[in-house]
Amino acid sequence: MQDRKQRVTLKHVAKAVGVNVSTVSRALDPAATHHVSPELAEEIRKASRKLGYKPNAAAYSLKTNRTRTIGVVVPDIADPVFPPIIRGIEDGLGLHDYVSIVANTDNDARREERVLETLNSRGVDGFILATTKRRDALIPRLTEGKPVISIIRKVDDARFSSVVHDEDEGIRRLLTHLVSLGHREIAHIAGPQEVSTGFMRYSAYERYRKLLGASPAGTLAVFARTFSEEEGERCAEELLVTGRAFTAVVCANDQLAIGAIAAFQRRGLLCPDNISVTGFNDIPLVDRLQPPLTTVRVQHHKLGFESALLAVEALRASGKTPKTSHMVLPIELVVRASTRAVRPPMPPGKVGARKRDAERAD
Amino acid sequence: MQDRKQRVTLKHVAKAVGVNVSTVSRALDPAATHHVSPELAEEIRKASRKLGYKPNAAAYSLKTNRTRTIGVVVPDIADPVFPPIIRGIEDGLGLHDYVSIVANTDNDARREERVLETLNSRGVDGFILATTKRRDALIPRLTEGKPVISIIRKVDDARFSSVVHDEDEGIRRLLTHLVSLGHREIAHIAGPQEVSTGFMRYSAYERYRKLLGASPAGTLAVFARTFSEEEGERCAEELLVTGRAFTAVVCANDQLAIGAIAAFQRRGLLCPDNISVTGFNDIPLVDRLQPPLTTVRVQHHKLGFESALLAVEALRASGKTPKTSHMVLPIELVVRASTRAVRPPMPPGKVGARKRDAERAD
Repeated sequence: MQDRKQRVTLKHVAKAVGVNVSTVSRALDPAATHHVSPELAEEIRKASRKLGYKPNAAAYSLKTNRTRTIGVVVPDIADPVFPPIIRGIEDGLGLHDYVSIVANTDNDARREERVLETLNSRGVDGFILATTKRRDALIPRLTEGKPVISIIRKVDDARFSSVVHDEDEGIRRLLTHLVSLGHREIAHIAGPQEVSTGFMRYSAYERYRKLLGASPAGTLAVFARTFSEEEGERCAEELLVTGRAFTAVVCANDQLAIGAIAAFQRRGLLCPDNISVTGFNDIPLVDRLQPPLTTVRVQHHKLGFESALLAVEALRASGKTPKTSHMVLPIELVVRASTRAVRPPMPPGKVGARKRDAERAD
Repeated sequence: MQDRKQRVTLKHVAKAVGVNVSTVSRALDPAATHHVSPELAEEIRKASRKLGYKPNAAAYSLKTNRTRTIGVVVPDIADPVFPPIIRGIEDGLGLHDYVSIVANTDNDARREERVLETLNSRGVDGFILATTKRRDALIPRLTEGKPVISIIRKVDDARFSSVVHDEDEGIRRLLTHLVSLGHREIAHIAGPQEVSTGFMRYSAYERYRKLLGASPAGTLAVFARTFSEEEGERCAEELLVTGRAFTAVVCANDQLAIGAIAAFQRRGLLCPDNISVTGFNDIPLVDRLQPPLTTVRVQHHKLGFESALLAVEALRASGKTPKTSHMVLPIELVVRASTRAVRPPMPPGKVGARKRDAERAD
């Protein structure tokens, strides 16, 4: 097998072309090939292909102290939000001959610590983290001064670059949509408040609720411990227990909305007939649910792709003052059948008006 | 920063404990620590923690020609089948201090070739591949004699270990379920035939259809080019075009079933009222669709986990005769509302019998 043959090294290629080893090394390094004339670089690439030269990642790594590997840490790869992001990261890194090592934390701080240590011992050059908390003590301690890009979530510490969705605009669009349909009592199933997405969506709900004149009797929010269907069900029950009237619920993500709709339905409250419900993210299949979910579409692949480019850029700039970037990607409101015009309790004589309301919803 | 300080090496730890370097190396290597007494190993681990020793992956790799990294290649990480598998692989590799590098191929042979070359140049120790074809010329050529575990799909070449689901039993259970509900004309939307899952599910359909006396007038199968919702829609239309009568469709996976149900519905054929439809895999949210999908539940996490253990085992055995293993994981039939008793056209006098049939379906 391959291992028994003598490994073809840069020296063999250099000898064949009649240049020195450092020229070959530059010609074959995508980041340095511009130091060599295009013709010579092509000649060197041809010779290396002909001889069967394969770069030795370990030797490259010892020499440059770089592995061209980025550690990607997510709470749970099986959450449908993450696969398209990881896809985007891979596509972005691939353009620059980097690869990613992906790891899960299960939202567990101790596991996160272990994962970051493992990635460090693997010598990753930088990190893309979807697991950051707003106040995160782990990250500065465990990333060893390497570039860190926080994705989806933001760290309050501005030293860390981030790529996030426009959470604020997403919630504003959802609330405006509901208020335009006549809803006034709009509840919120908020996400965990220690992560920025949960916090920002809740803050936006509070701010725009007041601006738009919704829930004039005061806030009507309950808090999920995780972004899951189970917590959506529990929170829907909690809302019913408050005894407060509401005709719509803005949920902090799609899974919470799916759980909430199921819990309401078990109590005979149909969506959208009795209650309108919205999600956030537009994960696969929410368009096929009954009712299809009104939600906010975010750009998962683009978010991953941009974070990869930021990581590569940060690595190229290292040595110089590290530049931090904060990107906010635009979102899109997707109106489907889980929201419709409110049908307030009305005297029988006004049934005609109610009907017109209902028609307006479509 | 870390890089400016002198790196703590095995030598420093050895000096501190008063043993030689090879003893420290063994004590800290999970695969060799049993060569050292537990007390001494613990003392060495404590000293290494205290001094802040971190293993250098690149040095380890050059010394051992091992990177403790497994290349995982999937057609598309955004297909909901793969995240739980990757999760399982990661959990299995983590037990033995291995990590995975995951790459996508988009079902594109040229991209697959590039991906395998990249992983080789990264010095991965072995491969877990979900992209194999039944007759696969790429794999032997591009995996350089390293251990290869084929998952979900099988290669006809028995040299490559595999972990697959019991496709045959899955289709048998689905067909038996449909025949027990009175269906006789059962169509099949088959997957791509160049991959083993598509081929095995189709073969099982043909075999059990005959054994169970379904579709006595002959096969009624159409072939999807990919396992996607779009192809499910196209294939449903193709079935309608044949003009043959059928009351149920066994689809080669969940996405094909979802697409088929949508296409039938647009033509006024409701599932399950007019036609029963089944999927395969039980991906997230198919239990929340309207109707919830009858399907076959496979063990994705376990499949990933077992393939990781097989890869590690193969690496430990290397040098000796490579042992190949072929695991087949059991499946489970999940009956939901997309299948119900057949309602053949009947004379009005027999409405009572039809009603009993319908009740039996629940």
